[in-house]
Amino acid sequence: MESERIWTAALVVIGDEILSGRTQDKNVAQIAQWLNVQGIRLVEVRVVPDRQEAIVEAVNILRARNDYLFTTGGIGPTHDDITVDAIATALGVGVVHHPKAVAVLERYYGSRGGITDARLRMARVPEGASLIENRMSGAPGIHIGNIFIMAGVPNITAGMLDSLTGTLEGGRPVVSRQIGCWVAESEIAELLSHAERTHAGVAIGSYPFFREGRTGANFVVRSSDPAAVDACITDLTAALEAAGHTVFPDGI
Amino acid sequence: MESERIWTAALVVIGDEILSGRTQDKNVAQIAQWLNVQGIRLVEVRVVPDRQEAIVEAVNILRARNDYLFTTGGIGPTHDDITVDAIATALGVGVVHHPKAVAVLERYYGSRGGITDARLRMARVPEGASLIENRMSGAPGIHIGNIFIMAGVPNITAGMLDSLTGTLEGGRPVVSRQIGCWVAESEIAELLSHAERTHAGVAIGSYPFFREGRTGANFVVRSSDPAAVDACITDLTAALEAAGHTVFPDGI
Repeated sequence: MESERIWTAALVVIGDEILSGRTQDKNVAQIAQWLNVQGIRLVEVRVVPDRQEAIVEAVNILRARNDYLFTTGGIGPTHDDITVDAIATALGVGVVHHPKAVAVLERYYGSRGGITDARLRMARVPEGASLIENRMSGAPGIHIGNIFIMAGVPNITAGMLDSLTGTLEGGRPVVSRQIGCWVAESEIAELLSHAERTHAGVAIGSYPFFREGRTGANFVVRSSDPAAVDACITDLTAALEAAGHTVFPDGI
Repeated sequence: MESERIWTAALVVIGDEILSGRTQDKNVAQIAQWLNVQGIRLVEVRVVPDRQEAIVEAVNILRARNDYLFTTGGIGPTHDDITVDAIATALGVGVVHHPKAVAVLERYYGSRGGITDARLRMARVPEGASLIENRMSGAPGIHIGNIFIMAGVPNITAGMLDSLTGTLEGGRPVVSRQIGCWVAESEIAELLSHAERTHAGVAIGSYPFFREGRTGANFVVRSSDPAAVDACITDLTAALEAAGHTVFPDGI
């Protein structure tokens, strides 16, 4: 079997509201799940404040070492929306008004009080960028080089991801299956480790929990080879049952 | 007024389950909120996979440039729990069994099947570390230098934060107040920016939303000076009302 190219992505979440604990981030999980389906692995996330130097540092390191870089947040019309300027600075290019974005915003705000200077801010893009369709509201997302600049509001980002579906080159999607047991993971640690060692190319994650006063754990097997996942799940189930545990085939 | 020392913290979230989108992180928001109360600002978060070199890189950069570094995840008994080894490597120290952690685990597992090699893994700490009490389950958190190693399961981390409350030196807590309007933020962008410029030491965040088919936004004013927050809220409220908007004094 030929060795496989792994496609990677990183995500920079831009927002004081996440770092202050005011807002619970939803974009990491939604972008991670979407990337999995495209055959791209999310390998690092950084949450940075609304400060240009922090954004520039994260963007420049992560775009260089990944196939794709996504950002969320900071593309609205207000003074704290500095993502476009920061990314233009990171890339060493200017900022221009994208004619198509101007037209989109003029149309969107036509029935909502008309275009203003503040609204025109949302048509600003790093020079050379193209747009990502926003099916939910006026301001589009932005694509430049290997960078995809998305909204902070999760349902707007969802619409932008939808427009990008199928347009990014990826590898084989990572497949995962889980099983679960009412067991303390410390009881079956060696058995898990043995299952991972004897199945090349799979990773097993062990996720303990406490519910209704009982200890349990789910075991997630991941690989880009579905047959390897199935074989590992089969062996792991047999080993857990041989050790006297009842296995829940879809997790608990 | 003397210029104020700002105390900063960073957080490294260790876990393939977050990067795969399987698990929604809860620790960023809970640790951010807890740090605010201690007078410490969370200024950067990185989510890294269960891979030693990724953990070492993030830990070494972030511990050097912050007063405190927190980590979550990867301190259980299974093969994918590599946080202790990675942090010991980052610090250039060995890994030892902490006698008090061994005693805690022996007591905890006394009525749960007894101690085993896998369970003893949870007593391993970087050489020179002390323990953070875990009020929920057996395995303690770990404190070494300016690093605080916490659990991945959010309610266990909550208990560990509780044991640390009041033990970390910080500055004045950041205070925040919010107001809200049913308005498109693009309509009042200049007004917000003006309010921020005329109140030294405050930051205003604008957080738009769409609910029940309507556009609204909350405006969060933050500062370590409560009087500056109040003055800014008063001026901003007056400016919004003068522009014809109804202001909801606690946000929407």
